[in-house]
Amino acid sequence: MIYDVVIKNTEILDKNDGETYQIGIRNGRIAYIGKDPVIGKETIDGSHHLAVSGFVNAHTHVAMTLFRSYADDMALMDWLQNRIWPMEDNLTNDAVYWGSLLGIAEMIRTGTTCFADMYFFMDATARAAAESGIRAVLSRGITGPSLEEGRSRIAENTELFRNWNGHEEGRITVMYGPHAPYTCSPELLKAIAEEAGREGAEIHMHLSETAGEVKNCQNQFGKTPIALACDTGLMERGLLAAHCVYVNEEDLALMAKNHVRVAHNPQSNLKLASGVAPVSSMLEKGLVVGLGTDGASSNNNLDMLEEIRLAAMLAKVKTGNPKTVPAKEAVAMGTIQGAQALGLPRMGAIREGWKADLALYDMQEPHWFPRNDRYSLLAYAADSHDVDTVLVDGRILFRNREFTTLDIEKVCFEASRCAEKLKNH
Amino acid sequence: MIYDVVIKNTEILDKNDGETYQIGIRNGRIAYIGKDPVIGKETIDGSHHLAVSGFVNAHTHVAMTLFRSYADDMALMDWLQNRIWPMEDNLTNDAVYWGSLLGIAEMIRTGTTCFADMYFFMDATARAAAESGIRAVLSRGITGPSLEEGRSRIAENTELFRNWNGHEEGRITVMYGPHAPYTCSPELLKAIAEEAGREGAEIHMHLSETAGEVKNCQNQFGKTPIALACDTGLMERGLLAAHCVYVNEEDLALMAKNHVRVAHNPQSNLKLASGVAPVSSMLEKGLVVGLGTDGASSNNNLDMLEEIRLAAMLAKVKTGNPKTVPAKEAVAMGTIQGAQALGLPRMGAIREGWKADLALYDMQEPHWFPRNDRYSLLAYAADSHDVDTVLVDGRILFRNREFTTLDIEKVCFEASRCAEKLKNH
Repeated sequence: MIYDVVIKNTEILDKNDGETYQIGIRNGRIAYIGKDPVIGKETIDGSHHLAVSGFVNAHTHVAMTLFRSYADDMALMDWLQNRIWPMEDNLTNDAVYWGSLLGIAEMIRTGTTCFADMYFFMDATARAAAESGIRAVLSRGITGPSLEEGRSRIAENTELFRNWNGHEEGRITVMYGPHAPYTCSPELLKAIAEEAGREGAEIHMHLSETAGEVKNCQNQFGKTPIALACDTGLMERGLLAAHCVYVNEEDLALMAKNHVRVAHNPQSNLKLASGVAPVSSMLEKGLVVGLGTDGASSNNNLDMLEEIRLAAMLAKVKTGNPKTVPAKEAVAMGTIQGAQALGLPRMGAIREGWKADLALYDMQEPHWFPRNDRYSLLAYAADSHDVDTVLVDGRILFRNREFTTLDIEKVCFEASRCAEKLKNH
Repeated sequence: MIYDVVIKNTEILDKNDGETYQIGIRNGRIAYIGKDPVIGKETIDGSHHLAVSGFVNAHTHVAMTLFRSYADDMALMDWLQNRIWPMEDNLTNDAVYWGSLLGIAEMIRTGTTCFADMYFFMDATARAAAESGIRAVLSRGITGPSLEEGRSRIAENTELFRNWNGHEEGRITVMYGPHAPYTCSPELLKAIAEEAGREGAEIHMHLSETAGEVKNCQNQFGKTPIALACDTGLMERGLLAAHCVYVNEEDLALMAKNHVRVAHNPQSNLKLASGVAPVSSMLEKGLVVGLGTDGASSNNNLDMLEEIRLAAMLAKVKTGNPKTVPAKEAVAMGTIQGAQALGLPRMGAIREGWKADLALYDMQEPHWFPRNDRYSLLAYAADSHDVDTVLVDGRILFRNREFTTLDIEKVCFEASRCAEKLKNH
């Protein structure tokens, strides 16, 4: 058997045993993990490296890298009304395309192989994902507030679904993206749920991000955002719920019953002073909890290792128990639970038959010594820039710290040009 | 004028203006910052780089890198009694020396130019600091509990002070290190304050790290750890207080009145589930607040950029206000406030006449685009591995990502050997 790609002599996080293995990849899958020498059309030397399943960024707005560090440390409404929305009003296909490529480059470079996105001009993001080779789950952010105002956006989401769902050999899938209960009327949410049902698509939505959102929703509709999402039929489609910082016991029960998957965004929730989601309660209820960076304007990078570390740390201080969300569980949230949250099977771990989406971490920097528990080293000590090789679907996208599918200098230049133009519009 | 070192065409964080400058360094000081071309015996090309004052790690136990990722996600007493203390019982000069060098290498590599340490076998740490070229403020961790038991440790601290304070052209200074109110009796604390007074030394101490510590102290002595430190005379010497997670209004007033400087350790406080220190209240009271990593066994790295980021993020969520501790203030905590916390003048900013302790960040990675506010890019988006050049006292310790004073492969090997030996003792 000649494999497409062979990774030689690498440690594997999932083994956590200090031994080295050969990994054989064929047709986009991990086809062999073992000790025997194997032959590949292409061979990567994994000596001194740790192979880790690619991180899954379960919630972001990748084109918002255009607004990185443009406006920070501001109150939410001041930030939105005076800085972000005026820039977004000027967005173009061109800007979203280059902004998406910039964010995708950053994700590949830091070991993320898949992301779930919600934004607009999504065809541009889809093209960027297709060209770069990364895996993506895309949705058109739909706001209303009224059904009338939302209709054209639903139509755009349907067009996105029909044009892109399952494309690039399944690397790109599409969900519907109702933005939030405070930007969509219940009628609009119902219409989205119905349309998603007709197309056979799932839902990606912001829910219960701030205390104010929950309070307003209860005042206006007499129920929590989670209950509203349930009552409008969104949960019947399969729901990826971003944030869920403020969820009560009834919300959690409703989420568990309806298999709602959570995208926890710890750093964004801190930076916008939203709060700390009750992750440990969610996990206890058996909920799937993935991790997301949110957009770069509220983070300000797309580094998933930071989210893994922070998710573990915050869960400990929130529960007052240092045993809560141990390293291995935090890594699972950034990998296999993220894959499950996005509805992608056989992904998120290094196992035979699973998707060959993985990153190699160079373990020669001082913070990798002494070589104790690998989960702990990765979750608590490693740096995302230890990544020097990344594969998606068995294809090498980053090797020896060089991009193989992107002209990174051009991407940085063009994204900067677009960002400058948006500011000066 | 021929400078010792010239950095050409670099941006400077303190300017935050997107312009490039020439920096001339002479006799360990920044002697020139300007636009005119200048000549140096050694020239560093700063194109596409951001010059940032070296980070000050205001509280660590550097040799504890030996225990990195050896025991995590455990309850505090289980962790100490069954994992850390048995290892520490076996410590040797050799182990502390190599463990210190490993931690120092990691700090230099991530842009930290100065650290405050408290541990034992401190002569070994002093030798490691001297050889590496990093700046250090060392103290012997003194525990009792009784005065009798503590006496030999006080004597060791005095020996450390006499042997090392002001050595290496002032790069190494020494404080006294009473460990904590729960490991030192009030009599022992008084004796330390007196001895420090006789020698003219300052104090570095853990204070109010956990709710349990404060409660026990109040039960046992009828006062908070902060009040106890005051009443035993420690504050009269100049006090660097690590942690201060649980401090009330009276504590804060006492700290402000006595110019107590705080070493805030956000990540360690999360990982051990201790809590989140009221940093914003401290800053409002005019307290100097530096940042520390604590030891690598409770962090698990010595990456100060993570602490800067986390300090800004946690302050926002703790106050519910995203404007709290903006990027520039968080960077100040990691640099100039850290220097003030350690009692080191003319350090912590890139200014003419100040110490030439600085790091150059390569800004060519995608997360540095678009090039908006530099403080925000550094505090919220950058990666410590963007650092490729580090100077301390005008001496180049790290250049083009290579150590100039350390044989890093040997350091990693020897530290691993020592760690393994401690485990198998």
